[in-house]
Amino acid sequence: MTNSPKKAVILLSGGLDSATVLAIARSEGYETYALSVSYGQRHSAELNAAVRVAQHLGAKAHQQMQVNLDAVGGSALTDRSIAVPEAPSSGIPVTYVPARNTLFLALSLGWAEVLGARDLFIGVNAVDYSGYPDCRPEFVQAFEALANLATKAGVEGAKFRIHTPLIQLSKAEIIRRGAGMGVDFAETVSCYQADGEGRACGRCDSCRIRREGFEAAGIPDPTRYQA
Amino acid sequence: MTNSPKKAVILLSGGLDSATVLAIARSEGYETYALSVSYGQRHSAELNAAVRVAQHLGAKAHQQMQVNLDAVGGSALTDRSIAVPEAPSSGIPVTYVPARNTLFLALSLGWAEVLGARDLFIGVNAVDYSGYPDCRPEFVQAFEALANLATKAGVEGAKFRIHTPLIQLSKAEIIRRGAGMGVDFAETVSCYQADGEGRACGRCDSCRIRREGFEAAGIPDPTRYQA
Repeated sequence: MTNSPKKAVILLSGGLDSATVLAIARSEGYETYALSVSYGQRHSAELNAAVRVAQHLGAKAHQQMQVNLDAVGGSALTDRSIAVPEAPSSGIPVTYVPARNTLFLALSLGWAEVLGARDLFIGVNAVDYSGYPDCRPEFVQAFEALANLATKAGVEGAKFRIHTPLIQLSKAEIIRRGAGMGVDFAETVSCYQADGEGRACGRCDSCRIRREGFEAAGIPDPTRYQA
Repeated sequence: MTNSPKKAVILLSGGLDSATVLAIARSEGYETYALSVSYGQRHSAELNAAVRVAQHLGAKAHQQMQVNLDAVGGSALTDRSIAVPEAPSSGIPVTYVPARNTLFLALSLGWAEVLGARDLFIGVNAVDYSGYPDCRPEFVQAFEALANLATKAGVEGAKFRIHTPLIQLSKAEIIRRGAGMGVDFAETVSCYQADGEGRACGRCDSCRIRREGFEAAGIPDPTRYQA
């Protein structure tokens, strides 16, 4: 009799970081369940990218969940009347989506409990990132503590674990790591205002961090840019 | 110059408890923003009830958000192949929805941050309840700690507070409290399998707890039951 593989839920946006996380989870032997969230983001091309990435990286299942965060707005990513900035800003930028990772982890936790999974993976990063509060280690630790109190599985003794394999890596290190595991970055979309074909603007914060990452990694940038 | 009233986000299911919470928040002087979540629950009549309750109790705004939890199932409330039990069970019942209050509080937190509100109200109760893990004080405290780490407002020094005015009340006490503040319980729907008109089955756990509450409170039960 063989043991069945351990299951993990991986938050998969369709960007470079979460694609690498999916590859890492698979390399660690997990049966991977990818979760993407359609939350009214203006860059919905990333959701199409997530479908390709999940398929390419052998996810056992890929679930897309819908939440209408655009009903409350408050972010350049969910409210089209707030422009995506094209110059670096100080402080937490307007692309911050209130409580987004709390929501994403809540959705992951619910699916994990249904699947019998105890391992959640999220591609947060506290080095080359935009300064979002819900990408910090202390946030992740607080959510892990919450998960064990919030659930039937936790009450029954299960220990949920939130894996953040990228949290202390630079963007260049993430790119090298993903490239070494066969992630096809041409499939991924990081741009906050990608067009319908997934082509990047080349000017937003997310494009800038990504492009500088490829340069620093010494790996050719396969991103498709708008003309 | 007058101070503008403090804003609060109130989770409003359309049931008896959350209607009472909305009345309490108003009585404490908050400008109330009611949030209902359509999550694929079988008892969607409660959402219609929430509309009436929000209007009746003077909510400044009422937002309904959509999340397709029925895509992952795992609960009698979101998966119609799992029957709602009609006899008391031991342990956490199959009506438990994985990570539901974590999700609801995440949605409330996001809206609160956009509104500039720091006060969230949720009608959890740890006395006459169904044993759900995410109705316990330790869960609520963990979420409050998370909220301040998860948000831009928290990083900037705001302190979110999760108010649980019902947490130590019996169902009879909740009913007396709500009745004293003018809550019209006939408008509320608690039943897990209410029909399209909001009429209660009279047999599920939620109906049983509610009916016993009216009896213990010595207040006539205005619930409309199915024939």
